[in-house]
Amino acid sequence: MNFKLIAYILGIISLIVGGFMTASLPWSHPLFGQVDAFDWRGFTGTLGAILVSILVGLVLLFVGRDARRDRLLRREALAAVALAWLLATILGALPYLFSGTARARENGRIVRMNIFDALFESASGYSGTGASVLSELEDPNLVPRSVLFWRSETHFLGGLGIVVLFVAVLGMGSAGKQLMRAEVAAPSQTSTHEQTRRAAIAFGSVFVTLNLILTGLLLLQGLSLFDALCHAFGTVATGGFSTYNNSIAHFQSPAIELTITVFMFLGCTNFALLYFAAKGNLQRLIYDVEFRVYAVIILVATLTTAACLFFEYPEYRYNPLTALRYSLFQCVSIQTNTGFATADFDKWPPFAKGVLLVLMYIGGCAGSTSCSVKVIRYIFLFKILALELEQTYRPNIVRVVRIGQHPVTDPDLLKSILVYFAMILLVSVVSWLGLLALEPLSTWNGAPGNKLIDCVSAVAATLNGVGPGLGIVGPMANYGAFHAPAKCILTVLMLLGRLELFPLLVILNPKFWRTR
Amino acid sequence: MNFKLIAYILGIISLIVGGFMTASLPWSHPLFGQVDAFDWRGFTGTLGAILVSILVGLVLLFVGRDARRDRLLRREALAAVALAWLLATILGALPYLFSGTARARENGRIVRMNIFDALFESASGYSGTGASVLSELEDPNLVPRSVLFWRSETHFLGGLGIVVLFVAVLGMGSAGKQLMRAEVAAPSQTSTHEQTRRAAIAFGSVFVTLNLILTGLLLLQGLSLFDALCHAFGTVATGGFSTYNNSIAHFQSPAIELTITVFMFLGCTNFALLYFAAKGNLQRLIYDVEFRVYAVIILVATLTTAACLFFEYPEYRYNPLTALRYSLFQCVSIQTNTGFATADFDKWPPFAKGVLLVLMYIGGCAGSTSCSVKVIRYIFLFKILALELEQTYRPNIVRVVRIGQHPVTDPDLLKSILVYFAMILLVSVVSWLGLLALEPLSTWNGAPGNKLIDCVSAVAATLNGVGPGLGIVGPMANYGAFHAPAKCILTVLMLLGRLELFPLLVILNPKFWRTR
Ligand SMILES: [K+]
Ligand SMILES: [K+]
Repeated sequence: MNFKLIAYILGIISLIVGGFMTASLPWSHPLFGQVDAFDWRGFTGTLGAILVSILVGLVLLFVGRDARRDRLLRREALAAVALAWLLATILGALPYLFSGTARARENGRIVRMNIFDALFESASGYSGTGASVLSELEDPNLVPRSVLFWRSETHFLGGLGIVVLFVAVLGMGSAGKQLMRAEVAAPSQTSTHEQTRRAAIAFGSVFVTLNLILTGLLLLQGLSLFDALCHAFGTVATGGFSTYNNSIAHFQSPAIELTITVFMFLGCTNFALLYFAAKGNLQRLIYDVEFRVYAVIILVATLTTAACLFFEYPEYRYNPLTALRYSLFQCVSIQTNTGFATADFDKWPPFAKGVLLVLMYIGGCAGSTSCSVKVIRYIFLFKILALELEQTYRPNIVRVVRIGQHPVTDPDLLKSILVYFAMILLVSVVSWLGLLALEPLSTWNGAPGNKLIDCVSAVAATLNGVGPGLGIVGPMANYGAFHAPAKCILTVLMLLGRLELFPLLVILNPKFWRTR
Repeated sequence: MNFKLIAYILGIISLIVGGFMTASLPWSHPLFGQVDAFDWRGFTGTLGAILVSILVGLVLLFVGRDARRDRLLRREALAAVALAWLLATILGALPYLFSGTARARENGRIVRMNIFDALFESASGYSGTGASVLSELEDPNLVPRSVLFWRSETHFLGGLGIVVLFVAVLGMGSAGKQLMRAEVAAPSQTSTHEQTRRAAIAFGSVFVTLNLILTGLLLLQGLSLFDALCHAFGTVATGGFSTYNNSIAHFQSPAIELTITVFMFLGCTNFALLYFAAKGNLQRLIYDVEFRVYAVIILVATLTTAACLFFEYPEYRYNPLTALRYSLFQCVSIQTNTGFATADFDKWPPFAKGVLLVLMYIGGCAGSTSCSVKVIRYIFLFKILALELEQTYRPNIVRVVRIGQHPVTDPDLLKSILVYFAMILLVSVVSWLGLLALEPLSTWNGAPGNKLIDCVSAVAATLNGVGPGLGIVGPMANYGAFHAPAKCILTVLMLLGRLELFPLLVILNPKFWRTR
């Protein structure tokens, strides 16, 4: 294992994290309209985190100063990616801790974030989950504005992909290609490392462009620069952190909702296809099988949810347009794994909640900022199962799975799809049992029946990077009520989901670290 | 498609069903101690069902009188098995309907079973599920004793395997082998048709022997012949129909509980291995990997559930032995998919309920009467996933999945394991959404939060042939509250689970019926 090169990579990433943190410093100054007087607590807290990040970065660069940089084995790339995300999570937790950010105010007493809260919030930001332990976002005395900005910025950094960024900037030849493959596990063709670098740059430019356009549109609709930037970061990265306790419901504006809906939808579209579309080749996007299925799922989910709300939910009962407005926003928000809310969907009828839970496990397109299973895997799954059913009664038939016009002949690819579903299922069930065992019943204030389903939703919402779940982790609640062991499980689930399981799972295996 | 041969097979099966029904006639007579006066309603109802079965059988035999019987294509075997189970379900529903069996007494009014109730109860019996819509088993005026006996007898017939019975009796050469393969889908070696017939006979003799021994043991413990037979049928077939409203809790006897626990355990052990053990070769059973894992899962589940009950459930709080007694019975009952209850586990802490829900999806060993996914598939799954994880960082490694000493080289077998899990998952999710959409919220009397988890448990308990679930379908409740559409979904799930999905899924496909 080339530990020196890994140290070098981690060093660069520490510096990147520290560099991005500086962007949250200005919001401590009254000039930017967020605070009345200079917020020393937020400023010094963030500054301390920046200094630590730079120090860690320099030490790691020193350790890796004479590393051989020409090639990276698959194993080393997986280790580098997993460790990079863990390190970024730890460094990203520091501003919360150093500034003494408060999780909640309980009976007049201020509850500050502990280390588990901070790691949870940091992992939630980078992974684009948007699950939060903070309940009083709007009070600068509890949550400094600079820390709130950093919180949304982690969405930006994580959505861009910490390693994608690295590769786009430094290239690093075949080593960069290996790193990209380890971070972006979705089914893709092999290509040269120059193509890999260009893909990273294309992804990054689409991502940044979408953020800029959305920030502009939100500014036009009257948001402050702070709110516009934070909500753009939360939307395009399909992250879901807001700066208001009531999420997007705060604005009570159909125009803002529609704007954000469009950009959540784009955030889960394949960025490579958006890149071609921006260059004038709209055909490739429109005729893409995955994009079409993705759009159809959203359409069907929205219509059935709207019908359910219309018939069964007293609040929207006589108003089909209202039902459609809220179901469209919520279905797009959940399927794209953003997790913004304009309604307390925890109060919706069970069928609507069931649809949202299933959407959590679907997600958007490959090559986007979606963290969930992704539509392309479902397309493969259904084709494999249909073929398998046919082979039950026609044992001798030879037929090939096709996606659009392309035959898929690689048996390993098909197997890896099935394996991925099995893994997701297994991780979900095991962590569900873990939550049931470790989280005390008192968290539910004596409603034991809800623990089962609330924990299902907590697992689904963190593993798939959605954020809000049902019940005590519903859209108008947060994860603050959970105890440390449950928060640890959920923190790991967020990172597992973002990295598509494998990099984190393998580094937990002692065999992995033994030199062969 | 050789429709004549299929008609011939279905004809024989109708006669078998009618023949078995006659065994329930005597219980209408006071001589057998079940009724005070001759129960004409139960007698004529059952007799009518027998006559219809015989008539249908004769008509089908006439249609298939000159069928070519020497061979059966895979497709025809699948169709024959699926249709045989559907026909048996329909014929088995007739005694309930003809005798006017009552589902419940509501506000003093007697509610008779409708066609959906009867099909549900019949499918539940044959599939060894033991889910019931009947709430007053102990009142002969509502449920005639002959019908109650027939209800338990369907467990015997279904556990034996309607087609296994047929093959054991008639043989039918390679056609019989194809039929067996279609009914018993579990991973197995190909063999000659004479071996197949011998396997059917071995399976049948172990099954019948276990039933006889258990009946004897229960008689010794003071049960009436009626109760002893019915509970033996319910135990060995891991069915779960009792003759008492409170299931096994009725007896309040640790000895009876222990006897039944042992036979539930045996009912889910591979019958071929029990056959060898009975012939003196105990080694094969004890060193069998699947048997060992099966026993370990039960042990671990029992201990964790007992610990959970001991610490968290006030009723057993200061009594570890009581906690162990109830958790042992319930874990064995649920993992073997029997569904007998000695406690209202719906009131247990969420973790214990979570463990039971997961056990539902595990089940017993292949080659037993278990209807669930079965332990062997999990062993394969874990081996596949471990290998896959290793190949993530060692792309060039070549290693083979091993079960015990045997290397598994057939890639189709491994793929079929993964496909089976994906199918089970898909069927579960789709039918869960179906229940959420079709069953009105009023069934829950305004507790919408429970609908989500109760429907999860209803799907798990029927698809895996368990019977009782949680909440409104809990162990001290029944499926009577559901409306017809939900009952239809659950009826299909029970048959799907019993036939391991494929035979029923393929006949729903129009392409299947087109002659190639
Ligand atoms: K999210
Ligand atoms: K059962």
